Amino acid sequence: MTERSEFQLAFLSIEQAARLLRRREISPVELVEAALARIERWSPDLRVFLTVLAEHARAQAKRAEREFRRGNARGPLHGIPVSLKDNFWTRGIRTTAGSKILADFVPEMDSDVAAALARAGAILLGKTNMHEFAYGITGENPHYGSSRNPWAPERISGGSSGGSAVAVTTGMGFASVGTDTGGSIRIPAALCGIVGLKPTYGLVSNEGVVPLGISFDHVGPLARSVTDACIVLEAIAGKYPRGETRPNYRVLRRNWPRRLRLGWPKDFFFERINPEIQAAIKGAAKEFESLGARIEEVPLPHLPDSIDRASNLVVAEASYFHESQGYYPSRSEDYGDDVRGHLEWGHNLRAVDYLGGIEARRLVQADFDAALAHVDAILAPTSPIPAPRIGESQVRISGERETNVRAELLRLTRPSNLTGLPAISIPCGFTQDGLPIGMQLIGPRWGEAKLLAIALAYEEATDWRNRHPVLS
Amino acid sequence: MTERSEFQLAFLSIEQAARLLRRREISPVELVEAALARIERWSPDLRVFLTVLAEHARAQAKRAEREFRRGNARGPLHGIPVSLKDNFWTRGIRTTAGSKILADFVPEMDSDVAAALARAGAILLGKTNMHEFAYGITGENPHYGSSRNPWAPERISGGSSGGSAVAVTTGMGFASVGTDTGGSIRIPAALCGIVGLKPTYGLVSNEGVVPLGISFDHVGPLARSVTDACIVLEAIAGKYPRGETRPNYRVLRRNWPRRLRLGWPKDFFFERINPEIQAAIKGAAKEFESLGARIEEVPLPHLPDSIDRASNLVVAEASYFHESQGYYPSRSEDYGDDVRGHLEWGHNLRAVDYLGGIEARRLVQADFDAALAHVDAILAPTSPIPAPRIGESQVRISGERETNVRAELLRLTRPSNLTGLPAISIPCGFTQDGLPIGMQLIGPRWGEAKLLAIALAYEEATDWRNRHPVLS
Repeated sequence: MTERSEFQLAFLSIEQAARLLRRREISPVELVEAALARIERWSPDLRVFLTVLAEHARAQAKRAEREFRRGNARGPLHGIPVSLKDNFWTRGIRTTAGSKILADFVPEMDSDVAAALARAGAILLGKTNMHEFAYGITGENPHYGSSRNPWAPERISGGSSGGSAVAVTTGMGFASVGTDTGGSIRIPAALCGIVGLKPTYGLVSNEGVVPLGISFDHVGPLARSVTDACIVLEAIAGKYPRGETRPNYRVLRRNWPRRLRLGWPKDFFFERINPEIQAAIKGAAKEFESLGARIEEVPLPHLPDSIDRASNLVVAEASYFHESQGYYPSRSEDYGDDVRGHLEWGHNLRAVDYLGGIEARRLVQADFDAALAHVDAILAPTSPIPAPRIGESQVRISGERETNVRAELLRLTRPSNLTGLPAISIPCGFTQDGLPIGMQLIGPRWGEAKLLAIALAYEEATDWRNRHPVLS
Repeated sequence: MTERSEFQLAFLSIEQAARLLRRREISPVELVEAALARIERWSPDLRVFLTVLAEHARAQAKRAEREFRRGNARGPLHGIPVSLKDNFWTRGIRTTAGSKILADFVPEMDSDVAAALARAGAILLGKTNMHEFAYGITGENPHYGSSRNPWAPERISGGSSGGSAVAVTTGMGFASVGTDTGGSIRIPAALCGIVGLKPTYGLVSNEGVVPLGISFDHVGPLARSVTDACIVLEAIAGKYPRGETRPNYRVLRRNWPRRLRLGWPKDFFFERINPEIQAAIKGAAKEFESLGARIEEVPLPHLPDSIDRASNLVVAEASYFHESQGYYPSRSEDYGDDVRGHLEWGHNLRAVDYLGGIEARRLVQADFDAALAHVDAILAPTSPIPAPRIGESQVRISGERETNVRAELLRLTRPSNLTGLPAISIPCGFTQDGLPIGMQLIGPRWGEAKLLAIALAYEEATDWRNRHPVLS
């Protein structure tokens, strides 16, 4: 048996780890101890976990060890330490949703995702930090501290699944599951340099998730590689409609399309982009061309005028949830300023504007459906800017006038929450300052198998997944 | 060739008329002349038609006559004079929707329904009077005069498809097509003593209909018998999902269920009902029992608390349409007082209340789905009151406190607009004052074939369809 360092154990791929576990060359106890050591060392400063389940994880690891010893290996997640964003209900384990209002909430039931991970044999390390009630894209949190970017701790991790992204990036577990209502999986994945997948709306159950905007809330994995993301997706995904291909990490390459066509959404997704990011995405397009892809411009004519009108929808849905639960306005003072402001906006929204949003969403959906009738996937930046500094509210992109950080961060991910189409963010480079750059691939409904195959081909042709931040 | 009176011609069933036309024992010209004579004589007083297409109808009749002479008979509507509610777009023919705002609107396209009727060979007599923008249940209209009940002209016809109901009742055409957003087909059918069918939501195309509340607008036939309604439905219906039975008027009896079970929705549908109506529905239930039916009480536990919350939805949708068209508030003074009031209500509705309505609708849908898992159809009164007097705004039901006429008229039909389930109103008696009483049968989604078979069996066991008002 080779001696492996904590670092080596913590940064195995899930596939490698599963193979070693099955062969009993490593033990789940080692994996858990490596992850817990890293959590203990860096989570307090980086504000990664809100609840660490050290004893629970150790007990589960021992149990898994016994199962491997008896030859009772389950699937690839068996014995693998993972984390969960703190808006997934976990039975008997505090679930704060990053809020003061739910600071002492201990659910009596597991969310469907928590139950699915347990069935797959994954070991839960703890619950990760997040933007309050998932209602923000920076990961800043006035109640529990803001999760920090491991590549530059004075910068945001991105959010709302910020703790999940940081945990995965820093080897505090192999993967995490987050939620994405406007970009909350993809943005922190992009800013931290990992893979984040927002699957087709409805593919992964929302049951037992503290909602933000119920018709936009997507559940999906954050992981260090496309294959790892696929493995987690397989464990948590519900049924596909008949005739659609269910992703299978063992044969993902099979779903590579015979003549790959990628859409280049010039007008909306490439306006007002940081030049280094723009260059990185162009480089990725070239890489795809060298893999045989044809890049075609795709128009999305209604998107620019519709996107802001459609954002009324999620704001209204969020306010409806908080009002119907009696949280708002009665506990108004218990919210952070940003979330309280959003809830007030939603409180005052008119029904006719909500319906205007429904109409705008229909137009956006029609744009993407039309584009995806011609191409296998759409290629775009995930975020127009690299990770801003914590507390920074304005940003200047390539010499233009200053704009709002939050709006910029959401701008390129939000369309796929309106359409419900699957979208994955994968690493595609670094800025000169050493900040990760993410690229988005957006595919047709239920098209995860092909989308993951396309992402995997790029990942294998490049080496971005093997960069890790140096922690101090 | 027998000589037939105008009355005899006007009150043939569609099936009889079609047979006589095919045998050339009558001519479409005779049918059109009989209908036009009745329109000329009684439409001005009863305020039935907003536009009479006398020359168009005569030309069409001659064309149909030639087709019959050549043996080119189409389906059962070929050569049959019908009318259309004035909110269906008709190419080159003014389409007012009963409003001042659209008083001069001449569409360049046919609605899908107008086109379907033309393809079936039906002859359009004209466009019928209606509640302004279909936004009211009485049929009163400040711009064109209120359509009057042919059984008692000082009373309302019901609405919003009031002109359509009166036309069919009085032999001004064999059938009409109306819209039903809260009861607008079934209420005037019940108050006038004819058959009105609101099919499953989406079965008949809304394309080219001036909308009221787009997710509640249903298109369906008004006719003098169940078979006539079925014939019109067949001409205008879209596709059924695979596995569902498409109604066929020739073999309707086949869809009679082997062991008919009817639901008796005691709590909501039988509270605060005019005693004569209550007695008539009980009599109908007895009649069904003698036909072999089993009557079972069905609970609809969420309905009473949810129905008012859910009514926000249609109000918001109506305001959205009128505001996005620029009609409201800019042409506020061109609306009748009632419609302007509704639009103002919708203008001020909050998005969170709209979402509360969505939740309430879900609860109502669940109630009906649960009930219809046990029974073939639900039996209920259509209206809790017989036709009130024109201008009457308050009503006292059996000695209780006065309540609002409009709210009472809508109360028992509105639930099926929320659920989208098919519902038919058929005549089941008269009050001592000689006012018609209607009974509703509500069936499962796409269940028109069975629903019509059940209605037909009752119709054939009784004789209500052969009563006609005496016009002066």
